[in-house]
Amino acid sequence: MTLPNSIDGALRARARRVVPGGMWGHQNVARIGPGYPQFFDRADGTRIWDVDGNAYTDFMCSWGPIILGHHAPEVEEAVRRQQGRGDCMNGPGEAMVELAELLVDTIPHADWVQFEKNGSDATTVAVTLARAGTGRRKLLVARGAYHGAVPWCSPSLAGVTAEDRAHLIHYEYNDLASLRNAVDQAGSDLAGILVSAFRHDLGQDQEMPTREFAQAARAACDATGAALILDDVRAGFRLHLGGSWELVGVRPDLSAWSKAIANGYALAAVTGSERWREAATQVFTTGSFWCSSIAMAAGVATLRELRRGEAIPTMERLGQALRDGLAAGAARHGLALRQTGPVQMPMVLFEDDPDFARAETFCAAALTRGAYFHPRHNMFLCAAHTEADVQTALDAADTGFAAVAQMRASA
Amino acid sequence: MTLPNSIDGALRARARRVVPGGMWGHQNVARIGPGYPQFFDRADGTRIWDVDGNAYTDFMCSWGPIILGHHAPEVEEAVRRQQGRGDCMNGPGEAMVELAELLVDTIPHADWVQFEKNGSDATTVAVTLARAGTGRRKLLVARGAYHGAVPWCSPSLAGVTAEDRAHLIHYEYNDLASLRNAVDQAGSDLAGILVSAFRHDLGQDQEMPTREFAQAARAACDATGAALILDDVRAGFRLHLGGSWELVGVRPDLSAWSKAIANGYALAAVTGSERWREAATQVFTTGSFWCSSIAMAAGVATLRELRRGEAIPTMERLGQALRDGLAAGAARHGLALRQTGPVQMPMVLFEDDPDFARAETFCAAALTRGAYFHPRHNMFLCAAHTEADVQTALDAADTGFAAVAQMRASA
Repeated sequence: MTLPNSIDGALRARARRVVPGGMWGHQNVARIGPGYPQFFDRADGTRIWDVDGNAYTDFMCSWGPIILGHHAPEVEEAVRRQQGRGDCMNGPGEAMVELAELLVDTIPHADWVQFEKNGSDATTVAVTLARAGTGRRKLLVARGAYHGAVPWCSPSLAGVTAEDRAHLIHYEYNDLASLRNAVDQAGSDLAGILVSAFRHDLGQDQEMPTREFAQAARAACDATGAALILDDVRAGFRLHLGGSWELVGVRPDLSAWSKAIANGYALAAVTGSERWREAATQVFTTGSFWCSSIAMAAGVATLRELRRGEAIPTMERLGQALRDGLAAGAARHGLALRQTGPVQMPMVLFEDDPDFARAETFCAAALTRGAYFHPRHNMFLCAAHTEADVQTALDAADTGFAAVAQMRASA
Repeated sequence: MTLPNSIDGALRARARRVVPGGMWGHQNVARIGPGYPQFFDRADGTRIWDVDGNAYTDFMCSWGPIILGHHAPEVEEAVRRQQGRGDCMNGPGEAMVELAELLVDTIPHADWVQFEKNGSDATTVAVTLARAGTGRRKLLVARGAYHGAVPWCSPSLAGVTAEDRAHLIHYEYNDLASLRNAVDQAGSDLAGILVSAFRHDLGQDQEMPTREFAQAARAACDATGAALILDDVRAGFRLHLGGSWELVGVRPDLSAWSKAIANGYALAAVTGSERWREAATQVFTTGSFWCSSIAMAAGVATLRELRRGEAIPTMERLGQALRDGLAAGAARHGLALRQTGPVQMPMVLFEDDPDFARAETFCAAALTRGAYFHPRHNMFLCAAHTEADVQTALDAADTGFAAVAQMRASA
């Protein structure tokens, strides 16, 4: 619990005066449950320290961006070098070209790259490219999927007009009949099919795409000339460096990337195949900081390190150990978990927990033992995690499971 | 001219393979004219070096973000300090609160702040807030004004649907009758009136807002409950620290900020008055890097330095010297210039130059003498500019004017 006289508490009071509600968006810990600090002082590797000096082993990795650990030496060294030269200039630096080349070399469907800053920028640019390249308007989107926080896709309808979503048609992820139905509904106006890397909706069991679903989406785009757009913003570089759908053997036309692309430095990218290059020259898209060289240099260093090939196997191995350990721990306390999706992006939900009260109790208790989990959102492993980190998580989880068992007993 | 065997030329060739058209957006020098380097190696103060080692005195300031000069010591020191602790973490750091407090203390209409990354984020959030806070849809926008590069406001229609702009109603900047007409057209569905700090449309004479126009916009919002939204992304902190419309004595309800807010580090903000605080808690807006602490620390250091009070007078004094010197130089060559808008954001256009051929000749020639100008977009002074920089500009301009006079003579 945050004590009223803690530094975090004092900062929250100050924030409430000058920030609506004291915080906004996905990092608003008011949405997580009690005990979570809002403000952080520092971070290193897989450790984060809140402003009161409490240390946590981190399993959110800044909601995805941190893939090599905080202050990964190769990234920080590249950043320092670039910072000494220049960052935001009248044009890009060589690092932009290097990073584009690396991405094209790494991602099989990618013949070209455009850079942005936010994941929402990348999904918005990709959709705009699909429309420009087809001259059509309809966009198929899975119901409940998160593709960003701008009016056409925001999970909240506050301030959104009906027209912002006029050309969206919804389907159910992994449901062939609903996809076919949506394609039919779009008819000759189908610009693109937008798919998440896997189903990773808030508070839901995760679900990898089936081969049949992925192939059906690809076939529908091939048949109609629409763009298959992969939203790899959240999962990108954690499942497969070539794009998450390499795992099901299906290649998109356009992909949206961000989060882990530069190990925490602000960057996003759209990659595309040759067919969409011309459309990408027509759409006017830009931002004041999109070509800044520090983030590009960080991206180059991050991708080089990832291409050494150890990061994903490490995350998989430790993610599996975490999953196995959590399952065993829950069983010891007579609790049943649902752990779904890729192990390196753990989603841990409790059975019989419709309001997430168990998950919140679990996470709040684990937090007091120094493990930073999330009760409703998928978590993230990074390449800096160690067996010791997993053990810390499992020890903390034991306290968490005990708290849930206690809660159930007294219910 | 870029030689085919130059480093810039080689980088362009590499870029053309992996980036559509070799570049995109506002930094695409293909749009400026011949001779401009695309790629930059380093920057310091008001000097920038292209990848071939050519140095320029810079009058674009990275299209606005650089307001204290590259590598401003107080900003870089704050960045280094923050970088040693942490940047992108699971939540914000103290610097976010400090910066929000500083902005609220500096900007008279601001009771609260939300942060973003891009100027387009800030304008989009402000518009969404206006709709959420009124439950209405219509947005008044000046014809030809630039408010970002996303579908509802992009200067290009490629990939944009009619519905993306369904609720825009256009007026002419500074034209009271057209504003009144637009307000009438919106009727009871008026959510907001969006205004640029001043008229700074590409390739047009700039125009400060008249008091009558600003007051009429304010009155229309007061009468209807709509939000007066000031887009101060481009001009913010260069005309008046409290917001550019302080110069005409009119306060907006919401303002969008970015560019100069953190001296080149990626950051944007929406500030608002108390009336819109509740709406700001309802709209879901967020981004992976929006609370990253390095940019916040850079913003705090930038704003503290600006509040010392020397930056704006310096930019005004040197901007006036530049304007006076350019006018005198043009006259010596028998040329007539149109220099409009605030002196610290110079817009230099030639008479009888409908296709900007004179402006491009002028800028290309000045570039060979080491001054980086822009032929169609407003330029930017920064607080690091000196009398010597202005003299460099005027010497280079003399070569530019001679080239234009020559061009006219041989036409």
